[in-house]
Amino acid sequence: MSDHHLGTPASRSAAIHTVWNRDLPPALHVRPGETVTFGTLDASDGNVARRAAAGELPGPAALVALAAADAYPQREAPRGHPLTGPVYVEGAEPGDALRVELREVRTADWGWTGCRPNGIGLLDAALAAEGLQPYTHLWDLRAGTHADFRPGLRVPLAPFPGVLGVAPAALGPHPTAPPRSVGGNMDIRQLVAGSTLWLPVEVAGALFSVGDLHAAQGDGELSGTGIECAGEVTLRFGLERGANISTPEFLTPTHGGSSTRWHATTGHHPDLMEAARLALRPMLRRLEARGLTLEEAYVLSSACVDLKISQIVDAPNYTVSAFLPLDVFTDAESAAT
Amino acid sequence: MSDHHLGTPASRSAAIHTVWNRDLPPALHVRPGETVTFGTLDASDGNVARRAAAGELPGPAALVALAAADAYPQREAPRGHPLTGPVYVEGAEPGDALRVELREVRTADWGWTGCRPNGIGLLDAALAAEGLQPYTHLWDLRAGTHADFRPGLRVPLAPFPGVLGVAPAALGPHPTAPPRSVGGNMDIRQLVAGSTLWLPVEVAGALFSVGDLHAAQGDGELSGTGIECAGEVTLRFGLERGANISTPEFLTPTHGGSSTRWHATTGHHPDLMEAARLALRPMLRRLEARGLTLEEAYVLSSACVDLKISQIVDAPNYTVSAFLPLDVFTDAESAAT
Repeated sequence: MSDHHLGTPASRSAAIHTVWNRDLPPALHVRPGETVTFGTLDASDGNVARRAAAGELPGPAALVALAAADAYPQREAPRGHPLTGPVYVEGAEPGDALRVELREVRTADWGWTGCRPNGIGLLDAALAAEGLQPYTHLWDLRAGTHADFRPGLRVPLAPFPGVLGVAPAALGPHPTAPPRSVGGNMDIRQLVAGSTLWLPVEVAGALFSVGDLHAAQGDGELSGTGIECAGEVTLRFGLERGANISTPEFLTPTHGGSSTRWHATTGHHPDLMEAARLALRPMLRRLEARGLTLEEAYVLSSACVDLKISQIVDAPNYTVSAFLPLDVFTDAESAAT
Repeated sequence: MSDHHLGTPASRSAAIHTVWNRDLPPALHVRPGETVTFGTLDASDGNVARRAAAGELPGPAALVALAAADAYPQREAPRGHPLTGPVYVEGAEPGDALRVELREVRTADWGWTGCRPNGIGLLDAALAAEGLQPYTHLWDLRAGTHADFRPGLRVPLAPFPGVLGVAPAALGPHPTAPPRSVGGNMDIRQLVAGSTLWLPVEVAGALFSVGDLHAAQGDGELSGTGIECAGEVTLRFGLERGANISTPEFLTPTHGGSSTRWHATTGHHPDLMEAARLALRPMLRRLEARGLTLEEAYVLSSACVDLKISQIVDAPNYTVSAFLPLDVFTDAESAAT
């Protein structure tokens, strides 16, 4: 049960914005303790659905048709993530923490994960030199618990909003891509239903928005996208007066994914970004050795491989490890390393 | 059952070295398929035990006495990690992968975790300005499953060797502190008993060494030390010819620690190292709010807080999250956030 609904198909245009800006008019006012169900759009703002409707996406016909059915007219370009909000929380003042309880996260019936040369992904530049092609993988999410990647290979689903944030105090529009001390595009995959997020309030009313659901994602979001999808998120708001937190914090029932065994690759380098690149490259090789294309290996990694900072103290080289959950392989033979 | 024993107290001095060097004489020759039990020393090479014996460490008397009982004469200083080896694996050649199965890891009865201003820890410099004092925490490891930190607070144990590696091809001595593409001081806490590690061989015989056991550690090893201890490690060796791996890889039965709930703090910054610092600082504040000193908060974090790269693609800010397992608090009231 929700006290409010925002971003339903009928009221969508009034509740979607694509920049952070303290001067946006609130789409809804709520009191602490109230619950809101947000309808949210996918990160491409319908572009992948439009490409499916135009016959531009290869893939299983039934899945392409499912995607195409969600197409809607394009907004003016270019834009950031389409976010649902902002919500004005009565009484919220700078210095407070906005408490956001994640009650429920429901995805659409399909999602997508993409990669492209020279884009935002961790290895896009390096893989461009090896011939990486633009690729959009469509996923059928209707099973709810997992999504098949191909026969014998499936990814567990654990949906969460990639973007949860409040308006920054600084005037003017701010792009949605980078997260900030007020949250935003944090892409923290442990923010599933059952978790609680605290955000530092910087403006009166907090001006909270949410969007960019991911049906699954590895820690890192390696190719630049998780399993991107539209959906609905039910959140309950609270206030903690004068909490003066400096950065988002959260309570979560999950630490990582579930698997009985993991295959990990490691990178050791003075720069953690480069250490992560060194770890990911051999992981892609392992997946290619199992018959995946380079593009498939990359988007599968983005959906389920986790990056951990194993050590951040052994100068001059720091260690990042990339973990593949071997339970994604459903037949015993292909699960063997 | 082991085919060989190396680094037992009786044969210790002949099997300990404190640099990587391809020209070190092998302490043992083994054939692929054979098993070796290594006795290993703690990372301080007995210094903490000597300080305990000299009455220089405050702490519970019984625990100080336990540590003091392990004191032995100091070697010439300064030195790197005391490692047990090297082991020459018959037939190993450059381009092969050395397979190391971790059969058993047994810790000594006690261990330590330290911090100090302006040392190697992630926040040492910043905390020095806030008055961080040198601190060495002693842990009683005899319960086996966990170590008490103080009443109502205990850390689960999951022992692993911090250092596992083979000799680099480059001539001359190499310090033990940084890990490399041939492994070494990787401090990967998932390398527990039951895991298998593959190391790239760069010299004939591989010249494998091991040491620096940690009874527990969070991903990151934030203050620069895990729960440091002496102990024994039983390993089985194998060779994979011409595997040509570029960096260590491993198979593990564990992804992270176990807890029913986690409290996480987040950092968002263009530099991942700085993002990690931003995430750790409020975590220490949370622990101080529970009554821990700054030093206690820091070493406890080093023993059990995990750093994850939540996203590495949302330029210009990348996200690191620090996860505290709330099950370390054993009474219900203090477990609440």
